Amino acid sequence: MAIEPIQNHYPEDIAVCYGCGRNNPGGLHIQTFWQNNEGIFRYTPLPNQTAFPGVAYGGLIANLIDCHSIGTAIAATYEAEGRAPGTEPGIMYVTANLNIDYLKPTPINSELLLRAKVTKLTRKKAIVACSLFAREIERARSQVVAVRVSLPLNLDMV
Amino acid sequence: MAIEPIQNHYPEDIAVCYGCGRNNPGGLHIQTFWQNNEGIFRYTPLPNQTAFPGVAYGGLIANLIDCHSIGTAIAATYEAEGRAPGTEPGIMYVTANLNIDYLKPTPINSELLLRAKVTKLTRKKAIVACSLFAREIERARSQVVAVRVSLPLNLDMV
Repeated sequence: MAIEPIQNHYPEDIAVCYGCGRNNPGGLHIQTFWQNNEGIFRYTPLPNQTAFPGVAYGGLIANLIDCHSIGTAIAATYEAEGRAPGTEPGIMYVTANLNIDYLKPTPINSELLLRAKVTKLTRKKAIVACSLFAREIERARSQVVAVRVSLPLNLDMV
Repeated sequence: MAIEPIQNHYPEDIAVCYGCGRNNPGGLHIQTFWQNNEGIFRYTPLPNQTAFPGVAYGGLIANLIDCHSIGTAIAATYEAEGRAPGTEPGIMYVTANLNIDYLKPTPINSELLLRAKVTKLTRKKAIVACSLFAREIERARSQVVAVRVSLPLNLDMV
């Protein structure tokens, strides 16, 4: 298992994502560990990240899946290119499509396990399948279409 | 335009959603106003709700779309049943599928406008189409499949 999460290798100036940026002090600090060809992430919801009493917020689950799937795409691409994470030129993706099936309610007072795999990788995009488990039961299943972008980012793009 | 958001009519004991619960003090307080057969919601991102510098977090957009689409499904169903919002038996939905196309980056320092419409309504589910605009340009387009649940909720369900 990678000792460091892939997010530690994102460029300093853009590592401000609310979901996964190490330079966003109030953010969620989602971390993707690359292990045996999949991205692994564990997260325990905070008490106020609720949908209903005792049930984790579906929007939180969307956040976890989104950033973890992007992290998995990045880690997989460094590996596919035979390079150590963070080596130049840096690899970055953005989300083009996020599609989540909420299969069962997710308990809030449990550790969540997210397992993500790249199911298709081309020069321009990655497709990532991710499942979220709590108490060993699959609660959400998703597909993310991640589009590769060049670094440094063109931040005039908005 | 409805004077009160539909979320004000959610039952007191379950109005704790991080996205839209009026009884979640640290939450996002998403509010759906029902007007001319669509749900309207305006939101200005906080400075730390970033993806990259100057760009709003896609996970935030997922949260806004999710809760606003559910709110729109609920408001539309009260109307379809010829009842005032909040009258008994209360109407509630949960998200079964959330599918978002991120069309363009969303600027963080702009008011966002979400417009949602119910495209299909049956006894058991609602399909909601929602678009998010900033500076009058569509930035995200989504479909939510909302499944109707009985109140009071069975909170042993997890």
